[in-house]
Amino acid sequence: MSEPGFDVIGLGNAIVDVIANAEDAFLVRQGLDKGAMRLIDEATAERLYDEMGPGLECSGGSAANSMVALASLGGRAAYLGRVKDDLLGRVFAHDIRAAGVAFDSRSASDGAATARCLILVTPDAQRTMNTFLGASTDFGVGEIDAGLIGAANVTYLEGYLWDKPAAKAAFREALGHAHAAGRKVALSLSDAFCVDRHRAEFRALIEREVDILFANEAEIRSLYQVDEFDKALQAVRKDCELAALTRSEKGSVVVSRDEIHVVDAAPVARVVDTTGAGDFYAAGFLYGITHGFDLARCARLGALAASEVIGHFGARPATSLKPLVEASAKSLPRR
Amino acid sequence: MSEPGFDVIGLGNAIVDVIANAEDAFLVRQGLDKGAMRLIDEATAERLYDEMGPGLECSGGSAANSMVALASLGGRAAYLGRVKDDLLGRVFAHDIRAAGVAFDSRSASDGAATARCLILVTPDAQRTMNTFLGASTDFGVGEIDAGLIGAANVTYLEGYLWDKPAAKAAFREALGHAHAAGRKVALSLSDAFCVDRHRAEFRALIEREVDILFANEAEIRSLYQVDEFDKALQAVRKDCELAALTRSEKGSVVVSRDEIHVVDAAPVARVVDTTGAGDFYAAGFLYGITHGFDLARCARLGALAASEVIGHFGARPATSLKPLVEASAKSLPRR
Repeated sequence: MSEPGFDVIGLGNAIVDVIANAEDAFLVRQGLDKGAMRLIDEATAERLYDEMGPGLECSGGSAANSMVALASLGGRAAYLGRVKDDLLGRVFAHDIRAAGVAFDSRSASDGAATARCLILVTPDAQRTMNTFLGASTDFGVGEIDAGLIGAANVTYLEGYLWDKPAAKAAFREALGHAHAAGRKVALSLSDAFCVDRHRAEFRALIEREVDILFANEAEIRSLYQVDEFDKALQAVRKDCELAALTRSEKGSVVVSRDEIHVVDAAPVARVVDTTGAGDFYAAGFLYGITHGFDLARCARLGALAASEVIGHFGARPATSLKPLVEASAKSLPRR
Repeated sequence: MSEPGFDVIGLGNAIVDVIANAEDAFLVRQGLDKGAMRLIDEATAERLYDEMGPGLECSGGSAANSMVALASLGGRAAYLGRVKDDLLGRVFAHDIRAAGVAFDSRSASDGAATARCLILVTPDAQRTMNTFLGASTDFGVGEIDAGLIGAANVTYLEGYLWDKPAAKAAFREALGHAHAAGRKVALSLSDAFCVDRHRAEFRALIEREVDILFANEAEIRSLYQVDEFDKALQAVRKDCELAALTRSEKGSVVVSRDEIHVVDAAPVARVVDTTGAGDFYAAGFLYGITHGFDLARCARLGALAASEVIGHFGARPATSLKPLVEASAKSLPRR
């Protein structure tokens, strides 16, 4: 087998983020579940956009965020996702390429508009997301490039893809190509409600086809329908070859068949916006995995990358993440 | 082998606690290391007692606290430790017996006065301890009751005993009797500075003779001289049959050869005084171990017991701990 040309290829919903501050009362008035992601249609997206405060626009989407962070760390990243050839679509494509991620998907000339996620950040730094999937929905099997996937050490998939049949078929196709090429497949569970929608299928995937699982505490508890982190930990330890479970300020727990690591969160002067924390953790962890780091160092690099993104608005690095790679060789500074 | 008459017998320095509030500035003026335990002589004890604010007196000592908590949970507890036949000595003996712990050690009629620990609690609920060991120092081999130790399922030893040659000899003697009777030996590392004083000996003990180890994060990092919890975790996992590592608000990590559990701290409305948190955790955990609970439930019961004691001043339960045993069967309430 040839040496892979990419460390990681990410597949996901190509979405432009619109981020705005919001009070808790605004969430209540809009009937929104704080901290969750919900899918909305174009009309609702327009209405909510009109009512919310002034926004900051930047290209986003969970796996895309991870690939941008991976590139910033110095990793070789590629991305597959679908945008329309409209203003937001051009913004997305320009932005991800400018960040150093290989992105060769063709923009659609018709159909729904480019996807957007209206993110409301409450004073407690939590984010509540309202996603209009638009063009990203039509991402399908036809857009999967077997050669590109075979050329990546790890294929990284968002759980969100499972929400739409065409994207789900593309997910399965990509997974098959990756394993046929002898590569690894990583999955991020994305969101506790997403897990709730697809629990049985996700569990079957994790037991049989996923090599590396990423989940936060709410997601992994939702997956196993348990109310305690330790119960989820015992279950995932049996089911999965390698799992990295993130716990916000409690750090992360990394578990494989033979190893377990309990690694602290990296210190952050002030948490401004947790958008992208999980995406950046996954990027740091995958950089480590694809560069032969031991699991504790992978988790430290994940923690360091996450600590960068939560210190400012938006899910893209405010500065090069490259120095974090060297920093991850040493113990994290104590909080 | 006969059925043991006690669940746990604790051995330690029999000390009366004197607890007072103190500002950080007071600690600085006195040259005290916040959060640490230091040994002082009788003259220093008198001087510090004069200068500190009004105190609350109650019988204490790490292993004694644990045995009182164990009795409150409904466990069968015994204690060995040495007091003088003076006022504080009589207070200690009355108090521990009234709490339901078998305490048959003879009070010394001469020698140093009963030990006391001057505990300064700063506004952040941390405790800084100044211990005059007095009579407890003379606890020695002569006071070890082989029959009593053989009659207990677990012999629980404080690391503090290692500070004085006579008590250390008693520690070794007790350990020998326990293993000769086919019982388990548990050790609490007591204090990071205590570990620093006896690191090599503690490591040898843990590798070869201790069945159950209790340590907080500072202690286990000190034991292995590492700056990161995960590094200590990897080391102790190799060295020790069973270890319960407490991490304050981060909960505890329990590790045996085949199992690992990451269990949350129990919610506390307000942390008033962390004195006794480790002692109560150990009591809950040992109640679980001696009643056949699985390790996750042992850790939950430890967390619940610790949460009771840190909600008020002093290291004795303010209310019966018995309801916690049933509560530990279920998941902990979320913080």
